[in-house]
Amino acid sequence: MSFSLKILGSNAAIAAHHRHQTSQVLTMMQVPFLIDCGEGTQLRLKKFKVKSQRIDHIFISHLHGDHYYGLMGLISSLHLYGRKKPLNIYAPPGLKEIISIQLKYSHSILNYEINYQEWTPGQSELLFENVNLTVHSFPLDHRIDCSGFLFQEKPKKRKIKKGLLEKNISPLTIITLKDGKDVLDENGKILLENKKYTDNPARQCSYAYCSDTRYDENIIPYIKGVDLLYHEATFKEDMKERADETYHSTTIQAGEIAKKAKVKKLLIGHYSTRYKELEPMLEETRTIFANTELALEGETITQE
Amino acid sequence: MSFSLKILGSNAAIAAHHRHQTSQVLTMMQVPFLIDCGEGTQLRLKKFKVKSQRIDHIFISHLHGDHYYGLMGLISSLHLYGRKKPLNIYAPPGLKEIISIQLKYSHSILNYEINYQEWTPGQSELLFENVNLTVHSFPLDHRIDCSGFLFQEKPKKRKIKKGLLEKNISPLTIITLKDGKDVLDENGKILLENKKYTDNPARQCSYAYCSDTRYDENIIPYIKGVDLLYHEATFKEDMKERADETYHSTTIQAGEIAKKAKVKKLLIGHYSTRYKELEPMLEETRTIFANTELALEGETITQE
Repeated sequence: MSFSLKILGSNAAIAAHHRHQTSQVLTMMQVPFLIDCGEGTQLRLKKFKVKSQRIDHIFISHLHGDHYYGLMGLISSLHLYGRKKPLNIYAPPGLKEIISIQLKYSHSILNYEINYQEWTPGQSELLFENVNLTVHSFPLDHRIDCSGFLFQEKPKKRKIKKGLLEKNISPLTIITLKDGKDVLDENGKILLENKKYTDNPARQCSYAYCSDTRYDENIIPYIKGVDLLYHEATFKEDMKERADETYHSTTIQAGEIAKKAKVKKLLIGHYSTRYKELEPMLEETRTIFANTELALEGETITQE
Repeated sequence: MSFSLKILGSNAAIAAHHRHQTSQVLTMMQVPFLIDCGEGTQLRLKKFKVKSQRIDHIFISHLHGDHYYGLMGLISSLHLYGRKKPLNIYAPPGLKEIISIQLKYSHSILNYEINYQEWTPGQSELLFENVNLTVHSFPLDHRIDCSGFLFQEKPKKRKIKKGLLEKNISPLTIITLKDGKDVLDENGKILLENKKYTDNPARQCSYAYCSDTRYDENIIPYIKGVDLLYHEATFKEDMKERADETYHSTTIQAGEIAKKAKVKKLLIGHYSTRYKELEPMLEETRTIFANTELALEGETITQE
């Protein structure tokens, strides 16, 4: 499994219809990432059996309460549960101040460290990197500074075809072939032609998270061709004006972005409380982009 | 009904065993007061059918997260639900700053006003008064500044005995008698002796809230003889040392305070997560103070 995405909260603004405020856990290449943290996220982590102490990286998209009011509670509980290892928060400017002031007034000294990495509004930056994957920010068009996140597996090496190479081949030759180069002799003559001895690498998997945002084609270069795009769809299309006023998107707009960015699959969420039933939102989006699903709390989307 | 108390949250520190962090709604003389506001309080207000827009007064005992992390979410939701009337928060020093900074970074201008009334640490003060009742703060002994609250009906007038007074008696005479004075003629001679024409007034009702605190006999003068005392009992008696270290109380200590303050009824709560079963805590407290009950979420204690 390349990645799995667990939905913890799917509603906009306030909790309603048994839906809660935005939060997700993405597990990519064995690393769990918490993305946004609405009020009560820690309860849903527990309910859906996600081990909160395994989470070392939290990404916050912006400072509207429905995306971060659960963070202080989670931070406090991790402390009370005895956490020692650092917690990395990829944060909008201001979040560190909000957290620090609350720790100050409660006279709390956490028994673990919080490393804040502020993303820069209006830019795309590399926020996280390990041997297998990277996470980049990219700007969304919302009422306040807001960032999307692209989680992406690193390019893989070419695969050596079985049974063609001699057994005592040198490690350097293997590396050269895996890197996509031909193996040459001292005169520059091709000894082993790459395409004869290697297959294409396994595909890189990728997940893009876009909440909250107006319809904005500027994000397309960042999310182009991803395996899974989460794009907010707060409103149905008949509320397009309201969506624009409030810096949100409609179902059709989410579908349009998915189509233009040629993503493989679209997941919509951040539903307005006015919609008790979500099927009509799904149907409307599918008129534009067929491979769409609803973000539903407790459900997990996996990518093999 | 003089007052009713609805328990919204009863656990200490973190949510566990289907118990949540501290919050209560006291309704006294038709006025609902929210006391403390742990994470997710707004969900439990909804669950237990308490109309959040009716709440105009919120009392926060101290700035440990399990007593106030639900406040920002509630404030935001009241705004989104269209509240216009002011909200009064009786707050520890620092809370206004914590709320203001979060409103600033979310670029939120609430469509209602918040009036902060800071209580002064280490003192007892009148925080609220209307024609029927008063609310006073009083200091508790906790790791950070922490206040108890005494909700008290105002002294009532004496009651005129039926059928004894002439029909055309003057309003001034009635007021004089209700105030407990004899009615005199111009020479100072008693015309109507108060005790002959009046009965004792109906009893004043009172509720005292004490969470979080160490065992502290200094609170007794403030809570003496109340109808209902809520006193935290985080630990059983075998954890007395731990209670003292963490500035909390045991079951026995809560019982001792109730007994020494000669209250009518004791309610314990703020249970440590180590206790899944609460009956043993109740039994232990009752060895000291028989008229004790457990604070259980969703339950309402009424006082006629």
